[in-house]
Amino acid sequence: MQNTTFQFFKQQLSKLAGGYKLDVPPCPIKLNQNENPYDWPSTLKQAVFERVRDVDWNRYPPFVPADFTSKVAKYLGVGADQVLVGNGSNELLYAIFVATLEPGRKVLIPQPTFTLYKLLAEILGAEVLTAGLDDDMQYDAVALETAARDANVVVLASPNNPTGSVINPIDLEHLVQTTHALWIVDEAYFEFHGETALELTRTCPNLVVLRTFSKAFATAGLRFGCMVCHPNALPLFAAAKLPYNLNIFTMAAVETAMEHAVTLKGRLEEIKRERERVARLLKASRGVRVYPSRSNFLLFETDRDPRALWQSMVNRGVLIRDVSSYPRLERALRVSIGRPEENDAFLKALEFAITEIAPGAKA
Amino acid sequence: MQNTTFQFFKQQLSKLAGGYKLDVPPCPIKLNQNENPYDWPSTLKQAVFERVRDVDWNRYPPFVPADFTSKVAKYLGVGADQVLVGNGSNELLYAIFVATLEPGRKVLIPQPTFTLYKLLAEILGAEVLTAGLDDDMQYDAVALETAARDANVVVLASPNNPTGSVINPIDLEHLVQTTHALWIVDEAYFEFHGETALELTRTCPNLVVLRTFSKAFATAGLRFGCMVCHPNALPLFAAAKLPYNLNIFTMAAVETAMEHAVTLKGRLEEIKRERERVARLLKASRGVRVYPSRSNFLLFETDRDPRALWQSMVNRGVLIRDVSSYPRLERALRVSIGRPEENDAFLKALEFAITEIAPGAKA
Repeated sequence: MQNTTFQFFKQQLSKLAGGYKLDVPPCPIKLNQNENPYDWPSTLKQAVFERVRDVDWNRYPPFVPADFTSKVAKYLGVGADQVLVGNGSNELLYAIFVATLEPGRKVLIPQPTFTLYKLLAEILGAEVLTAGLDDDMQYDAVALETAARDANVVVLASPNNPTGSVINPIDLEHLVQTTHALWIVDEAYFEFHGETALELTRTCPNLVVLRTFSKAFATAGLRFGCMVCHPNALPLFAAAKLPYNLNIFTMAAVETAMEHAVTLKGRLEEIKRERERVARLLKASRGVRVYPSRSNFLLFETDRDPRALWQSMVNRGVLIRDVSSYPRLERALRVSIGRPEENDAFLKALEFAITEIAPGAKA
Repeated sequence: MQNTTFQFFKQQLSKLAGGYKLDVPPCPIKLNQNENPYDWPSTLKQAVFERVRDVDWNRYPPFVPADFTSKVAKYLGVGADQVLVGNGSNELLYAIFVATLEPGRKVLIPQPTFTLYKLLAEILGAEVLTAGLDDDMQYDAVALETAARDANVVVLASPNNPTGSVINPIDLEHLVQTTHALWIVDEAYFEFHGETALELTRTCPNLVVLRTFSKAFATAGLRFGCMVCHPNALPLFAAAKLPYNLNIFTMAAVETAMEHAVTLKGRLEEIKRERERVARLLKASRGVRVYPSRSNFLLFETDRDPRALWQSMVNRGVLIRDVSSYPRLERALRVSIGRPEENDAFLKALEFAITEIAPGAKA
């Protein structure tokens, strides 16, 4: 790239271009994105169509979708003045980052975690600190407190993707109350875990909780997420978010999803049982070490070259996530929990791959 | 707000919080957002439902929606490697700004124009320059060239909202080719005007054209927009855009819209005829001066207090846009072109309001 041609880009952009990529060969068994393996029943899809049929598509959605936001708030059990809604929680995280990060500011993002956090922070020119997860990939409250003193913002995913780490609620309360940093807790996998920091948002102005409908709610295709924070902080975050960001269909689908939450989340117990079954069998595999999980995926390390294992499984039609390029996870792969037959196919493909590939260093 | 409580926010946020607001009293006649007044036919809505019914809602959309983007590119007549898609063109403008603006950088946004440009630039800490529109609110190529030398980025809406100004294509080519700034041309109202800078994007790496389906395409409720740029610049803009930003429904609707473009845009000639009719009648109103328009709205100045006129029309059930708080538009209102009977209701309400309110200074 010629400097004169593209000097309008910020300095940091050129080294980040195309930073978050996903290698997705077509495979019949898809266990690479921590999706809920069960689609919406057709009756519920139809209910969404009925709801959106009589809306004017030529009109903008409401400037502030107050009715919709109130319903989401009620579902979550928080105040309507605490909630912002977005196209996936990523859109809200981006708005929060824009509101808080710029060159000269620091964000603590314990590594390894969801790649996008760091990329977005770097695009905004912030310095990224990485402490906070100990040798067993568990959150270390003392390390977090020390590092947070130097940071403007902290991002914790709980459970963390891909390590499964969860933050102790008592630790979190202490950290939020004794530091000036903004704490962002991404609870994308909340429903598989059960512990939440939502209650703390009523009293802590420096806490944001992110939620998504993409995982437990089986709604990844519709891209809906929300954030919950203290009412006094909300207008400032809202200023960094685009108006009219949610379209009429997303809102209709999410309203339907909340009304039928029991149906859509009805398979959670089965997914959790499957997680325990797969973990047990995985632990029995040769050269495999499995991390504890409170979510809908399992992280495991292997004494084989992880990329070769991944490719061998792809060749057998099973797509999982190769996370071996993540920091501190040189030998790791991640598998989402699917339907029982999909999980069986994964275990079988892994067994084949382990037989095929000799133990050894990473290629 | 206590400084210690909210010191995690960037300095510039507090003065911007809630900056872009819209006053929308419920009115039966809605001519305030430059929407197409004709909703989608129910057969086309049904076609979208059919298309999305068999898609897995539990799965993420494609990481890069290549097929969909190719269709949009083909519709626009540009290369697939030139197009990025988003939830409204606003989302793409935000990504472009994040890729190019930060404290210490400057953006030229000729005023008055769409309020959001300046707000987003200021949230990112950029300095906003405002030159470029002459006394008649027409683009001044010399003023633009001079101001652009000092800017990293320039935003031109053509036709401009709310002034209707259009940039001369020869001027634009010269400006883009003789400056190092990035030129963003927002063609939201392209279909009502007919001139486009799309062709220039093949040869000019410092040009981006924005398009939306919210206006002529009658699809505001679904929030779809796209950007077109040089293939070499695209990956750097893409780095600042979230992955999976478009949901499956938006893509299905936009594909349907493109296939049925003749139907959805079939009313454009009628809207343009109505624009000329309303302009003619408006010019005959007492104390009113109408700006030329190549879009689906009219800007007019009044010798009455514009806020009082606006309120009087709201009281009669007609909602237009009060733009008198925009820079240089102290006496101006903007009306979208609706259905003939809506336009008649507007003209009648305005006539009443003018009779009711004496000429005079702004309240």
